[in-house]
Amino acid sequence: MDTVPLRPASTVAVTPLVVRDGVARPRSDWVAAEEPLEIRIDIGGVEHTLTVTMRTPGNDFELAVGFLVAEGVIRAPEHVDQVKYCVGGPAEQQYNIVTVVLRPGARFDPQRLARTFTMSSACGVCGKASLEGLTLQDPPPLPTGPVVDATILQQMPAALRAKQRLFSKTGGLHAAGLFDPSGRIEMVREDVGRHNALDKVVGSLVLGGRLPAGERVVQVSGRASYEIMQKALMAGIAFVSAVGAPSSLAVDLAQEFGMTLTGFVSEDGFNVYAGKERVRV
Amino acid sequence: MDTVPLRPASTVAVTPLVVRDGVARPRSDWVAAEEPLEIRIDIGGVEHTLTVTMRTPGNDFELAVGFLVAEGVIRAPEHVDQVKYCVGGPAEQQYNIVTVVLRPGARFDPQRLARTFTMSSACGVCGKASLEGLTLQDPPPLPTGPVVDATILQQMPAALRAKQRLFSKTGGLHAAGLFDPSGRIEMVREDVGRHNALDKVVGSLVLGGRLPAGERVVQVSGRASYEIMQKALMAGIAFVSAVGAPSSLAVDLAQEFGMTLTGFVSEDGFNVYAGKERVRV
Repeated sequence: MDTVPLRPASTVAVTPLVVRDGVARPRSDWVAAEEPLEIRIDIGGVEHTLTVTMRTPGNDFELAVGFLVAEGVIRAPEHVDQVKYCVGGPAEQQYNIVTVVLRPGARFDPQRLARTFTMSSACGVCGKASLEGLTLQDPPPLPTGPVVDATILQQMPAALRAKQRLFSKTGGLHAAGLFDPSGRIEMVREDVGRHNALDKVVGSLVLGGRLPAGERVVQVSGRASYEIMQKALMAGIAFVSAVGAPSSLAVDLAQEFGMTLTGFVSEDGFNVYAGKERVRV
Repeated sequence: MDTVPLRPASTVAVTPLVVRDGVARPRSDWVAAEEPLEIRIDIGGVEHTLTVTMRTPGNDFELAVGFLVAEGVIRAPEHVDQVKYCVGGPAEQQYNIVTVVLRPGARFDPQRLARTFTMSSACGVCGKASLEGLTLQDPPPLPTGPVVDATILQQMPAALRAKQRLFSKTGGLHAAGLFDPSGRIEMVREDVGRHNALDKVVGSLVLGGRLPAGERVVQVSGRASYEIMQKALMAGIAFVSAVGAPSSLAVDLAQEFGMTLTGFVSEDGFNVYAGKERVRV
């Protein structure tokens, strides 16, 4: 993998006018960086642009690889040959373009690509320019576990929050955390887009040779949508826990594929929307 | 416009297992509905699919029209001839496909369409399958106002929250509200995707013959991203106020186009990131 200097920062300094008690004063502060990222694949020496997403710079290679897992293109670590920035292109954009060089075995459907699938900071269903494109790409089998104690689950949001370095600085980022069944936090990724945060977690697993993820829980800082469930499912993660509410499609997908979905998780309790056999009360 | 029966509901009944104090009990509850919506345009009798977004059913015609405003296709109410569901198609999908029939004058760029632009529940930059596609489509001129008192601005989040009917029921929806400079709330729209909520507001303005929107404030329930600012700008709305944090690109866009952007707005105060001339402290 290439190493590159001068990557864009994950936070940007600003000086807002802060209004309190009828008084306005300028104050130095930070906001979460948001920049477009173009994700390309290289297959047999030919590059194709798959998508542009708005993301927070940082862990870009993970984001690109994780996105390709959710789309069913990458199904095992050995499908990735190399990940690189577009160094040599226009200077202001070279760190906003990532190419994933695929090895034989990666599933590349030109028919599907022909639809030019694109996404956003919160997108997993994108680029399927018709409703027929929304079907999942042959998800992997899920583990029967993990089985998690209710008391452990209730501590995950606070444990995640404590590790959200960029959120603490800006107040403006989503996070996804990977936990083992004992409640130990293994990884946290942040992004302006909650789906990007999960893509980064999955991409990190792939680049570390750890796909499927095994018996793990993904805790997300926000709500659970269809796309969040889809991304977990395609990474072989059976347990998704959300600080916020689930959507109807998130519940449907969890039930259909035998996933566990918990929502409104806090120190005081939570709701189980699907897969209660993985929760020990 | 067609009227149709049996549209999908905006909320769905669920029976989660509620865990509190080590006890698990099933309880009847509601989650926000999430369904795909395919947006088509009909120009000269030919239909084109533009995008599929995940949205909360309800105000679908507004969502489709508002999306087309953000994309620069519709620039005035007279560009819309008709909006209709795909009645007659497969029964389970007919209310998930909306076609906007355009009149001459709508800006339709086949080159742009050829990229098959798609989006998600939180997407405005989608479907531009390369970074060059991210440029804004010739935004309209903005009004010099509104100028809003700090004390009035600080009351908007609570006023918006009080009108979030679906959020109260599900705890899982974003909202966008349109306010006049005196703080009167004119419209609220909700959706699982925050950008969809704003599209619905803009679409309602168009269908009511009210584009550009004039001196109005858009208050959003979440954070302010690039896409939120883009959608406000394309609707001619100069003032965006967010309960949450802005991203770096949101601040950049506001500064570049002379918009006002406030964030972290609460009863106690707020931050002004751009356009302080529209805030009276």
